[in-house]
Amino acid sequence: MQTPWEDRYAFRTKRMGSSVIRELLKFTQQPDIISFAGGLPAPDVFPLKEFQRACNAVLQEQGAQALQYSTTEGHPPLREMIARHTARYAIEVSPDNILITSGSQQALDFIGRLFINRGDRILVESPTYLGALQAWNAYGAEYVSVPIDEHGMITDELEKALRSGVKFIYVLPNFQNPTGSTLSLERRHKLIELADRYGVPIVEDDPYGQLRYEGQHLRPIIALDSEFHKRNGDTYSGNVIYLSTYSKLLAPGLRLGWVIAPQEVIRKLVMAKQAADLHTATFNQVVAHEIGKDGFIDQHVKTIRSTYKERRDIMLETMAELFPSEVSWTHPEGGMFLWGILPGDMDAAEVLKIAIERKVAFVPGFAFHANGGGNNTMRINFSFSNPETTREGISRLGLVLKEQISKK
Amino acid sequence: MQTPWEDRYAFRTKRMGSSVIRELLKFTQQPDIISFAGGLPAPDVFPLKEFQRACNAVLQEQGAQALQYSTTEGHPPLREMIARHTARYAIEVSPDNILITSGSQQALDFIGRLFINRGDRILVESPTYLGALQAWNAYGAEYVSVPIDEHGMITDELEKALRSGVKFIYVLPNFQNPTGSTLSLERRHKLIELADRYGVPIVEDDPYGQLRYEGQHLRPIIALDSEFHKRNGDTYSGNVIYLSTYSKLLAPGLRLGWVIAPQEVIRKLVMAKQAADLHTATFNQVVAHEIGKDGFIDQHVKTIRSTYKERRDIMLETMAELFPSEVSWTHPEGGMFLWGILPGDMDAAEVLKIAIERKVAFVPGFAFHANGGGNNTMRINFSFSNPETTREGISRLGLVLKEQISKK
Repeated sequence: MQTPWEDRYAFRTKRMGSSVIRELLKFTQQPDIISFAGGLPAPDVFPLKEFQRACNAVLQEQGAQALQYSTTEGHPPLREMIARHTARYAIEVSPDNILITSGSQQALDFIGRLFINRGDRILVESPTYLGALQAWNAYGAEYVSVPIDEHGMITDELEKALRSGVKFIYVLPNFQNPTGSTLSLERRHKLIELADRYGVPIVEDDPYGQLRYEGQHLRPIIALDSEFHKRNGDTYSGNVIYLSTYSKLLAPGLRLGWVIAPQEVIRKLVMAKQAADLHTATFNQVVAHEIGKDGFIDQHVKTIRSTYKERRDIMLETMAELFPSEVSWTHPEGGMFLWGILPGDMDAAEVLKIAIERKVAFVPGFAFHANGGGNNTMRINFSFSNPETTREGISRLGLVLKEQISKK
Repeated sequence: MQTPWEDRYAFRTKRMGSSVIRELLKFTQQPDIISFAGGLPAPDVFPLKEFQRACNAVLQEQGAQALQYSTTEGHPPLREMIARHTARYAIEVSPDNILITSGSQQALDFIGRLFINRGDRILVESPTYLGALQAWNAYGAEYVSVPIDEHGMITDELEKALRSGVKFIYVLPNFQNPTGSTLSLERRHKLIELADRYGVPIVEDDPYGQLRYEGQHLRPIIALDSEFHKRNGDTYSGNVIYLSTYSKLLAPGLRLGWVIAPQEVIRKLVMAKQAADLHTATFNQVVAHEIGKDGFIDQHVKTIRSTYKERRDIMLETMAELFPSEVSWTHPEGGMFLWGILPGDMDAAEVLKIAIERKVAFVPGFAFHANGGGNNTMRINFSFSNPETTREGISRLGLVLKEQISKK
């Protein structure tokens, strides 16, 4: 007889669904659509020659090691390199505080695995990164939302949310996905104080921290927390689990991210990773180390910054010129996204349908809200399209918005 | 205050532990130890030149695509290539039946995620692959064990186990890890019949199927099952989920495996993977396709076979010459492992302690038993060490065994 697979699935699969964004992306991948929907780095800035040099060097000099199984924690020289780089951002950590993951998404999954019992409440920004919600839904998470404005999570609302009892706080402090907002220094301090007062850990997700195009670099929460707890030493032992990635600095197709956390948390994450996929691809780790060991990534980040800054500026300029006055948007100081806000009675998902007919796409903002709302918002990516395409796409979108608003 | 991390962890972490094998491996990595403990392919057979050619070709011809995000299902040309290769082994599947995973271990994790509620019973061979137990423990699995002999799982004992109510059957039909046993054709048929009678799916784990050094190739369970259900067509829709990997055919450091399953199961696995790590590294997939597309892997497998056959033969020969008569062992027709059986009152873990002092290592067999037992057994890897080292290591081990047995 035919196997009734549906009846065999575990209870947790009821909360598993395909991401709205990824489904949308499929739809917007027709070549004639200008898509501001994805979260893709610009392929123009991938350092192909450097990759080629590194692959050849690795295969010639240490090929057998780079193609063999390796330790779950990650390639030791890569972890040492990350610890050194991190120190410049005033986070003093040792390689023992670092676990290499297959992209930041895997770190989010492992954090869910480690901390979330079915029904546990996670404190998130509203809106927040969709991939985190997707990772944690499978573990049965519920969400407590704290709204954000142009200075990030509104910490005045945080205490009430903390008193509802949460497992951890999830925050994207720099050029947040989806809004582009950055958490102010004052709020970073406030967040750390409140987290400590209620004894709740912080998960700091920082994929874009180095992609700042204006304004002053703000110290990561993990660094401020370390100071707050007056623990400075070789090994980090504070209240923060910090995530970052090479997806935006080198290439997402490598799937290389990392977690920085107290050693006892890293040890537990290592057990999770061992059971999940043994270790991240050795070859990718050795190649990333080969690329980064003499400072190439620092140079390369400057190229990325200048490319993305230009694209952001052109997008903001064109929006100011062509978007109807009823629409507002954020002016991110870095990252890859900005956030559009339509009049309250408009539905961005409906606008998207028309926009796709006119060959331009974005992501409707409702998808990023853990507890509903945001129907009149939209996430717009500015890193992927070149200046010319950006101008054309924004003018198409401006036209759609004007028409839709005039119909109201 | 200091964060009490231990108190924040989810219930499932109580069943998470580090693998005995991986902990042992750390211990046996001292350079002067001859280790038969690992499950490592021989680095001597990694096709370094072919990797170099492929990396260069990929970066020159399709670098931007190979370094970008890609679809969760996997690189389409790679899935097509796997479908074509699979067809030669009489499994007719389409690319829609295939999901690329980050090694087979990740497929095991996703199967746990998809099927296992806390307390669900999984039918496994005794002994079985430790990595599967580790993956499924985190989901709260319990195990029903069916013993195996030199023809694989003893199907006469299977029916009783099935009547205890199990979620699925897990079987490694070819040159099983850890015993090296191969499931006979008769028992494959019996397994399929019984699984169908009780409506229980089969998970077929086949990392070594192509590494046969003697005897006749046996058709995979998924192919026999497809025939049994009289479903032959482009799209597989039977009762089996089949796993394999490039770890043993190309290189484990790539972390590339795949699942073949009915489309509805693949769709669900894709959702699990999206939440877990978005997708397997694009670059690795594109490079593997570049290496395999013109038949290189078929040629290369012949090299691996002849290398491993020589090593197996030398090991068996040296064991016959130097092991005490009280010890018996399997004669695997392929794969990477053989299984030693000591007198019933001996403890292989105790023997290992002495062996490590004498600079030779193996894995004590108890670790592979889901429900205890096997204290007098040992797993011995024959693929990693070259002939000379194998001879030296086996003679050291033979001496230890003789001494320990004479002490009894």
